[in-house]
Amino acid sequence: MINIIGREIPDGILKDRKPFEGQFAFSDEIVKTTPKIKPVKPGENKLLRSIEEAILKTGLKDGMTISFHHHFREGDYILNNVLGVIAKLGIKDLTLATSSLGSVHKPLIEHIKNGVISKITTSGLRGALAEAISSGILKEPVIVRSHGGRARAVECGDIKIDVAFLGAPASDEYGNASGTRGKANCGSLGYAMVDAKYADKVVILTDCLVEFPNMPASIDQTYVDYVVKIDSIGDPAGIASGATRYTKNPKELLIAENASKAITASPYFKDGYSFQTGSGGSALAVTRFLREEMLKRDIKASFALGGITKPMIEMLEEGLIKHIYDVQDFDLVSVNSIGNNPMQHEIDASFYANPHNKGCIANKLDVVVLSALEIDTKFNVNVMTGSDGVLRGASGGHSDTAACAKLTVIVTPLIRGRIPCIVEDVNTVITPGESIDVVVTEVGIAVNPRRTDLLESFKAVNLPVKSIEELKDKAYSIVGIPDKIEYEGEVVGIIEYRDGSIIDVVKKVK
Amino acid sequence: MINIIGREIPDGILKDRKPFEGQFAFSDEIVKTTPKIKPVKPGENKLLRSIEEAILKTGLKDGMTISFHHHFREGDYILNNVLGVIAKLGIKDLTLATSSLGSVHKPLIEHIKNGVISKITTSGLRGALAEAISSGILKEPVIVRSHGGRARAVECGDIKIDVAFLGAPASDEYGNASGTRGKANCGSLGYAMVDAKYADKVVILTDCLVEFPNMPASIDQTYVDYVVKIDSIGDPAGIASGATRYTKNPKELLIAENASKAITASPYFKDGYSFQTGSGGSALAVTRFLREEMLKRDIKASFALGGITKPMIEMLEEGLIKHIYDVQDFDLVSVNSIGNNPMQHEIDASFYANPHNKGCIANKLDVVVLSALEIDTKFNVNVMTGSDGVLRGASGGHSDTAACAKLTVIVTPLIRGRIPCIVEDVNTVITPGESIDVVVTEVGIAVNPRRTDLLESFKAVNLPVKSIEELKDKAYSIVGIPDKIEYEGEVVGIIEYRDGSIIDVVKKVK
Repeated sequence: MINIIGREIPDGILKDRKPFEGQFAFSDEIVKTTPKIKPVKPGENKLLRSIEEAILKTGLKDGMTISFHHHFREGDYILNNVLGVIAKLGIKDLTLATSSLGSVHKPLIEHIKNGVISKITTSGLRGALAEAISSGILKEPVIVRSHGGRARAVECGDIKIDVAFLGAPASDEYGNASGTRGKANCGSLGYAMVDAKYADKVVILTDCLVEFPNMPASIDQTYVDYVVKIDSIGDPAGIASGATRYTKNPKELLIAENASKAITASPYFKDGYSFQTGSGGSALAVTRFLREEMLKRDIKASFALGGITKPMIEMLEEGLIKHIYDVQDFDLVSVNSIGNNPMQHEIDASFYANPHNKGCIANKLDVVVLSALEIDTKFNVNVMTGSDGVLRGASGGHSDTAACAKLTVIVTPLIRGRIPCIVEDVNTVITPGESIDVVVTEVGIAVNPRRTDLLESFKAVNLPVKSIEELKDKAYSIVGIPDKIEYEGEVVGIIEYRDGSIIDVVKKVK
Repeated sequence: MINIIGREIPDGILKDRKPFEGQFAFSDEIVKTTPKIKPVKPGENKLLRSIEEAILKTGLKDGMTISFHHHFREGDYILNNVLGVIAKLGIKDLTLATSSLGSVHKPLIEHIKNGVISKITTSGLRGALAEAISSGILKEPVIVRSHGGRARAVECGDIKIDVAFLGAPASDEYGNASGTRGKANCGSLGYAMVDAKYADKVVILTDCLVEFPNMPASIDQTYVDYVVKIDSIGDPAGIASGATRYTKNPKELLIAENASKAITASPYFKDGYSFQTGSGGSALAVTRFLREEMLKRDIKASFALGGITKPMIEMLEEGLIKHIYDVQDFDLVSVNSIGNNPMQHEIDASFYANPHNKGCIANKLDVVVLSALEIDTKFNVNVMTGSDGVLRGASGGHSDTAACAKLTVIVTPLIRGRIPCIVEDVNTVITPGESIDVVVTEVGIAVNPRRTDLLESFKAVNLPVKSIEELKDKAYSIVGIPDKIEYEGEVVGIIEYRDGSIIDVVKKVK
């Protein structure tokens, strides 16, 4: 069938799933899932000697679902390490429900080929693993979920985690685990916190066993079955970038300046507003431009949200931001701040962006700045597949914050290399056009026709407003009309919208 | 039938309940309950104009279960206020699942008589309401639960809360609620936090609506359906005592000194130990004596737990206690400290003492000091009914911490007025004798025969050790053997042990 935004979803995919019907079409009551708890009595010991012992104690069996978090990003040692032991133990046919995957997880290819992992759900996929999955090595399509959508799925049982293996920079022997106070710190453990609450069995893996009680804890003892001390949870250099440099790329700066002008010309830029930017070159630069305008107009933000970066921490410290809600930290400055600044609040992915709780913090966003691999003339955004149709990106909080924020701004160059970023139809829809308000490029700003109000605001301050078709034509005029990608029939990826409906699929490339 | 500690439990009571079989007899796997969530979308408003509007919006109907917390103690306006509106709306046959009840809740008598409330579960009962329930005005027996037992019951669905009405000293319009930053502050909202997580509908009532976001919040927006601003949530004087005076009662001081000697002579009194005392005269004095001995021996506590009082805060501030786990605050000093001292951790009742999570903090207690109305020669403790058999007390965290701590010390005078406190058989068992290690009175210390190890420790330092029978004989020799209470057949109260089994019942007094 063809869903409401015109994407063809094969009937087989929709067996027990609904097609996407609009960003807030869902309005049912939700019943949360029910973890099974084995009570822990006084005197019982949770500290085990090895990953193998933990796997055996949890009762992990063929066909179960295991989870991991991606706070260690490209520095992660946990997932490969645990899967190596699982493979050695001969356990097969597992579903891997990780919050995201990176290039570092290339060894997964072998585990898929050997039948250890048969299903995967993730937010992101990169590198050789992504290419292998695109080429069809998984028996069932990978399910791509947003951060809020994954929290929703875990909470309602769409993802039923049997065993969560959660790396923690520090933990005590009773499972009070934190993202700081260790050797390889990642700051917020926001994605892991959801798994700890809903998994039947929770194993904390740490390379830094500290004195009881390790407080404050991101994950507390009442959610943890076992603790394992290992040699190393990850490579600090891959976990958090040491320093965040401002971009010197003139194109990125121009995009950022245009985005900042659009935001500050909007009715949302006023005292007490809230925003989420991001970690890309343009996004970091937007934060800097916003800061200048906030100082000029004596505006303070009530909160900033997201993936947190150094510029946000600096604004918190100078009083320009009152609160930071922190689901993950992208650099060492934000990692080091979270344990020390009481106004930098660690939040889990459900509080961040789950559409099916009683009001996630994304609901309260005024402005979000997001990037794109492609955006089309219907304002649909692709952050998941390359121009060749191959998986190489991450859904992240893109569709979550885009749906919730009052002003959703996409920052993108018009072209990347010889590839147009504004196109007739994106390869893969992660975020539907109805969620997008403004697209900012170096050559002009396009406003979603739904937002005639913004169009008025922008014209009043002489912003270079163009139609999205004009931007696309301009891109095509430079690099030509892109060739159509030739797909085979096989679906290798299912793009689940944050409410659990199916917004798109990714097919195998010929 | 007669349960394992010799209490007769009428068969009708055991229809769908198990008799008590020992403090850690329970070892099943637990399945948590599943709240039903109505998702809240961006732009939706939670702030309502009145309690009546909130009741109507929640869909409260005859036969449902409503909950309240008791952090406002004798200063609480919320419960009477809400029940008044419910009565006016003509809603009947409700189950009242409050964390505790006090003398202030006398108006409940009318609501019971009028059929608004037909069942009650609580930790405590006092005053005219307690007497009325003892006299049989409820259609079904009141269920008395410990704080940990209530958290267990809420989490597993034994108590299925349809609507929680939770008073908060401060809240924003989106339901981020706190026990401080208001006009009538109570500090920790530990009991309310459990209800917020498991109730289908959650209403926050506050007299202090603050700017969004009210952070840090004890109860966060993702758990809250509605917020109502009312004139006053309670009387600050009844919520927290302004100052905590040390007892000058020589008997209480002697008991405290004996208790302190017992604790410091035990193998548990060493660097890194943990303890919970309480709020009574002797308990506060014990804390003071322990402090002196800790200074003398250069001992620091890893944590203190409980109901928090000024002496604990002072020890936290002078570095004698590293962490405080705070489920409720008894005085203004601890209320004012919780928002300011990052080492004073607000915890919910499940983290505190739920026996059926993966390890409550009570599991980690070395020493707990508890009081008693009566204790018998089997070391069973009664903190619930008076010597006349009438309900007038609270189960509280008594059986929870007594079961968990390595050293459980009961402090009690030998007699109160003309009533013996050490008796042959207590009227009502809240805590089974197997949980009690030491009984301390002004005339001597009795050690549970199970603990020959402690007996050796105490004799070594010349503590006035006596048998529990000797203490009972001494009490009886002063005031005589108490008359047997004459009961009728009707059961007016069921005493549920923390694991959900039935440890005793309270019958109607003739």
